[in-house]
Amino acid sequence: MGSARNLLLLSSSRLHGHGYLEHARGQLEDLFKGASVKTVLFVPYALRDHDKYTATVRDALQPWGYTVEGLHTKPDPVQALSTAQAIFVGGGNTFVLLRTLYKLQLLEPIRELVLRRGLPYVGSSAGTNVATRSIHTTNDMPVAYPPSFDALALVPFNINPHYLDPEVGSQHKGETRDERLEEFVAYHQLPVLGLREGTSVRVEGEKATLLGDRNAKLFKADGNTQELAPQADLSFLLQQE
Amino acid sequence: MGSARNLLLLSSSRLHGHGYLEHARGQLEDLFKGASVKTVLFVPYALRDHDKYTATVRDALQPWGYTVEGLHTKPDPVQALSTAQAIFVGGGNTFVLLRTLYKLQLLEPIRELVLRRGLPYVGSSAGTNVATRSIHTTNDMPVAYPPSFDALALVPFNINPHYLDPEVGSQHKGETRDERLEEFVAYHQLPVLGLREGTSVRVEGEKATLLGDRNAKLFKADGNTQELAPQADLSFLLQQE
Repeated sequence: MGSARNLLLLSSSRLHGHGYLEHARGQLEDLFKGASVKTVLFVPYALRDHDKYTATVRDALQPWGYTVEGLHTKPDPVQALSTAQAIFVGGGNTFVLLRTLYKLQLLEPIRELVLRRGLPYVGSSAGTNVATRSIHTTNDMPVAYPPSFDALALVPFNINPHYLDPEVGSQHKGETRDERLEEFVAYHQLPVLGLREGTSVRVEGEKATLLGDRNAKLFKADGNTQELAPQADLSFLLQQE
Repeated sequence: MGSARNLLLLSSSRLHGHGYLEHARGQLEDLFKGASVKTVLFVPYALRDHDKYTATVRDALQPWGYTVEGLHTKPDPVQALSTAQAIFVGGGNTFVLLRTLYKLQLLEPIRELVLRRGLPYVGSSAGTNVATRSIHTTNDMPVAYPPSFDALALVPFNINPHYLDPEVGSQHKGETRDERLEEFVAYHQLPVLGLREGTSVRVEGEKATLLGDRNAKLFKADGNTQELAPQADLSFLLQQE
């Protein structure tokens, strides 16, 4: 199961000091080149203005030689997915995104295409959250109520995108990101990978690798944590099922 | 409707430089004195260790002359609520708290007691979120899936506890609190009150007042925002229904 996987899960589409998606250009090109992708089907449901969002992604990818189409413009989304060369699920609000995928009944088709037929999947932020087993570890405000927090489960662990180290000396009494993630682990006894901005997880079949210039922080099921270096082999996280 | 309301909704139980609940002592004493409260029934479901959490609240309130009992120790919670002098719903994880209230079927009993029979209600953080119309504006990580985001609706608007101004010069690309709250308003066309730490909303019947030393920031249904000064009359927010 999952042997056809070809995923790139980005922490974020923006990184300080870089243009939109610019920091991930090499990672995207590697994936697209390997799969002979020329046209990317963009899934814009995490933001409200689908046309504008698709244009933003087109403006980034077109100069690099890729055509970008919006899934929302397709009369038959399932048909469009089944003939796509690659899909890119953009960030925004994870709850809105997942609710829309349920409403349009796209979870099973995407899951089938990605896991069995090797459809390349790129996710960013919310698009990364929905690629994992559930959205329990999103940072987003729950502005919409999806019929479940279960997501695509293209990988069997959780990811926390935009992972942020606790701010030293903060006087704010809201919980830190670490406290929130430890809470998730305590309730579920499942691991979460904290992905700092600028880093990504690349999955090819049963092999997973940490990409980018910074560490990732793994919150393990037993309550301990571990820093993982760039290029770390994350394949052990695919063995959860 | 709602004319018996006697609420104190705190942004947080902790404020930098103060002991647990210390910053709110005067507000709590005013409410408890007015309602002749000597014993407080504490609702600890937002955290995992109910005994420990109840002890924390007891340690704070006992020196001020109040007895604290934990709702989780009562064999019949509905009966315990119906004979309580006041309830205090503590903070922690809003999703866990609301799911537990649904599971124990306590929403309707609490709503009835507070709105019709004037049971004094104190909420802090997550306990404030569940007192409002919904938990759509919680800051918490969705570690548990409640059967609905609809909450007690003791007030007909939303509150964002621990409200935090955007950090000037941040290089982080996750959304700011303001962006998240604007997103809620855009999807729901409903107002949210951003309650900074150290501030509270006091509701007596049809009258609502901002307490504490800092402004609150109102995100209006039309997309505009407004700063409200300490002691501001918030009664207009009770006219939403």
